[in-house]
Amino acid sequence: MVNNRIELEKALEYLDNNQDESLERLFEILRIPSISTKNNNKKDCLKAADWFVQQLKDIGFKASIRKTSGHPMVVAHFENDGPHFLFYGHYDVQPVDPLDLWDHDPFHPKIEDAPKGKIIKARGASDDKGQVMTFIEACRAHIKTSGTLPCKITILLEGEEEIGSPSMSNFLKANSEELTADYSLVCDTGMWDNKTPCITTMLRGMVGDEVTITAANRDLHSGMYGGVAANPIHLLTKILSDLHDENGRITLDGFYNGVPELSLEQKKQWDNLNFDSKAFLSDVGLSNVIGEPNYTPLEKIWSQPTCEVNGIWGGYIEPGFKTVLPSKASAKVSFRLVGSQVPSKVLKSFRKHVISLLPSDCSVEFNEKAGSGASSLPINSPEIKAAEKALKDEWLVEPRMVGCGGSIPIGDHFKNILGMNSLLVGFGLDDDKIHSPNEKYSLSSYQKGTRSWARILFNLSNI
Amino acid sequence: MVNNRIELEKALEYLDNNQDESLERLFEILRIPSISTKNNNKKDCLKAADWFVQQLKDIGFKASIRKTSGHPMVVAHFENDGPHFLFYGHYDVQPVDPLDLWDHDPFHPKIEDAPKGKIIKARGASDDKGQVMTFIEACRAHIKTSGTLPCKITILLEGEEEIGSPSMSNFLKANSEELTADYSLVCDTGMWDNKTPCITTMLRGMVGDEVTITAANRDLHSGMYGGVAANPIHLLTKILSDLHDENGRITLDGFYNGVPELSLEQKKQWDNLNFDSKAFLSDVGLSNVIGEPNYTPLEKIWSQPTCEVNGIWGGYIEPGFKTVLPSKASAKVSFRLVGSQVPSKVLKSFRKHVISLLPSDCSVEFNEKAGSGASSLPINSPEIKAAEKALKDEWLVEPRMVGCGGSIPIGDHFKNILGMNSLLVGFGLDDDKIHSPNEKYSLSSYQKGTRSWARILFNLSNI
Repeated sequence: MVNNRIELEKALEYLDNNQDESLERLFEILRIPSISTKNNNKKDCLKAADWFVQQLKDIGFKASIRKTSGHPMVVAHFENDGPHFLFYGHYDVQPVDPLDLWDHDPFHPKIEDAPKGKIIKARGASDDKGQVMTFIEACRAHIKTSGTLPCKITILLEGEEEIGSPSMSNFLKANSEELTADYSLVCDTGMWDNKTPCITTMLRGMVGDEVTITAANRDLHSGMYGGVAANPIHLLTKILSDLHDENGRITLDGFYNGVPELSLEQKKQWDNLNFDSKAFLSDVGLSNVIGEPNYTPLEKIWSQPTCEVNGIWGGYIEPGFKTVLPSKASAKVSFRLVGSQVPSKVLKSFRKHVISLLPSDCSVEFNEKAGSGASSLPINSPEIKAAEKALKDEWLVEPRMVGCGGSIPIGDHFKNILGMNSLLVGFGLDDDKIHSPNEKYSLSSYQKGTRSWARILFNLSNI
Repeated sequence: MVNNRIELEKALEYLDNNQDESLERLFEILRIPSISTKNNNKKDCLKAADWFVQQLKDIGFKASIRKTSGHPMVVAHFENDGPHFLFYGHYDVQPVDPLDLWDHDPFHPKIEDAPKGKIIKARGASDDKGQVMTFIEACRAHIKTSGTLPCKITILLEGEEEIGSPSMSNFLKANSEELTADYSLVCDTGMWDNKTPCITTMLRGMVGDEVTITAANRDLHSGMYGGVAANPIHLLTKILSDLHDENGRITLDGFYNGVPELSLEQKKQWDNLNFDSKAFLSDVGLSNVIGEPNYTPLEKIWSQPTCEVNGIWGGYIEPGFKTVLPSKASAKVSFRLVGSQVPSKVLKSFRKHVISLLPSDCSVEFNEKAGSGASSLPINSPEIKAAEKALKDEWLVEPRMVGCGGSIPIGDHFKNILGMNSLLVGFGLDDDKIHSPNEKYSLSSYQKGTRSWARILFNLSNI
């Protein structure tokens, strides 16, 4: 066990002196195109998992690949006295299309100068390989300088986070004894801004559905059948446009059941963050805040549920014209959930809505994306306080307690299956372009993030 | 000139005795994938044009390729005494996707047995290569048996019919003296049923538009921006679903200007055709007639305008999920026009509708598909009567006078630019699957169609 402040200082010094080697390790894993949603990249996902196993073995973890029905898990243990923490991250990444919008090969990481300092550019640099590496490098520093860690650590890395973690729930149930710790640590969230760290205390849940409507048994000539036979694109656009009312409120039956009223205290705390929604939108070329006028943008992102169409396709979509009445039309729809909204109930209500607008001679197929509920943390626990102190020591500013619009279903799973709370600390920035072309991670996020974890591990072990 | 009935009989006998050679010629042209909307098939379009030039030269026409800014025209002349007819057809075909729904290579034509007799299967077999060949083979028969034709013929074959004939209008204007005849003959329409020919006296017009809505300047993470930033798919589905009211009536401002009230006489004539709309729909797996209840299905197809979305795309459309808020969403929309509806006005009204629903921070791009108005024929003219008699002699039933839901803009162009009326006779059948996988042309359509043109040419020349 490391419980002497001098030992922490040695670990931090080690990190400062070994930055280049650390970056080279990060670049190695960024070069592996572990896109979980693409069948063609199945081997790359395995390769990424293997790479992490080897890294963790190198620094003294007992690590192995663990099969699932999809991409494998990486599980690694560092036995020790003291409290037991389960660290979670994911080694899979989002697809890279549209590839022509990248200004370099997404799997050839590079360092670039940017207005706010150097950045690491690559798919996965921020989400989530760079973030995972901040933790592993912090462990490496403690081990290299003190021969051990300040506590007992289990590491669980998933390869299916970007596709909704279909294997996670069963894996946790089957291995609950091995994986249950005192607290879990998750590094997949962001900073408040590039100088201010934060701890995420609220996360939205998510559930999704792919819907395909079939009308005629083949594509038809729009001159012969138009206006007489059902056009599945018309049906789909009606179904989708009816999902929101004119104020942007979601119309699905029972959808808002379980959406809590925001406390005045919480509203006030968030108002004090002085979130600049104008800058937030103008950064992506927009200026209008959409949706219900009675919530601030931050309240919408952190505390309100959403319904978004993530993809739509049907009929002739290549260059030129083909005056066809298509047989099929499809869309991918996802819902961000808050409070105690139940993913399966939302899905059921969505499907009921679709079916209610379907003519008797048309059919529909659904393909669910596994869902999870929202989660939130008790913000006055000793663990949160210890992490807060560590972050303040590193960044020299008061960390913010924030919500997050994204969904990290793992928090929900850890709570429900393993009975653990999760500390959500990450170093991503809003302009990291995760899920988009030209994803990046700030070099300062990587370097100070690594130092932050070295401090957090030390503080958590000395509560 | 051929003006002796015995000469017609010799031509018909020639056609009966040379069916195999005639089919082999048809197969040759069906093997050329002259898809006009695909850049990759540009050379194939030229190859198809060249093939027709050679065929027409072989039988004594003075034929040549005529350049346009797109795919070339084929123009051929057979100088003669007597009346002058301009025959029009097109050598380009529709795309073949989705290719996996074809049960054979669309450009390897074959003959198959089917419940109602033999069929010729290939892309273009019916629309329009098979139809064009019925006319050329009829000319061949007259020339081979009498050394000449019964009249003066000009043939004009287009390579851009399936993409809206963008070059036609300018070409006709530039060559009006050469191309103006007494009457035009168009073979791109269908029969009433497989035993009953018809003359199409009403055609709908068409105009189309491709619309692309851009919201953010890049794809966004739906967890971070969902519910706050505009989703262009949501905007597009709203814009498209608002195009029809709950009765299926098109809502665009001024859209129904120029749509004539159907006369009671016309309604009665069409009612007497006993159109089986149940069979028409059940053939494609549907059972409900959509749209306004105060029109019969036939009235809808022949005399009412339509608005159809022919294609839609945006966001993540590959297998798996990507919870993205896309930057762009697009759709291809086309309108069938009737009466004196003006294509440019319809387009203007559509664009006004789109723009009216566009938030101030989003932008839109349009890409027009060249349009044409509807057309209709004086049904008591000597030319129509002569063709009617020829068809009755061949098929031994009274031909029907019908409307057509499709758009053959050429009728409109010939009328407006060259001042000619057009005789629309064709031998396609409703189940020919034109524009769809497994397109076919009945062997009887091809063989009796050829004989029909031999008769029509003879009758027209002897009014």
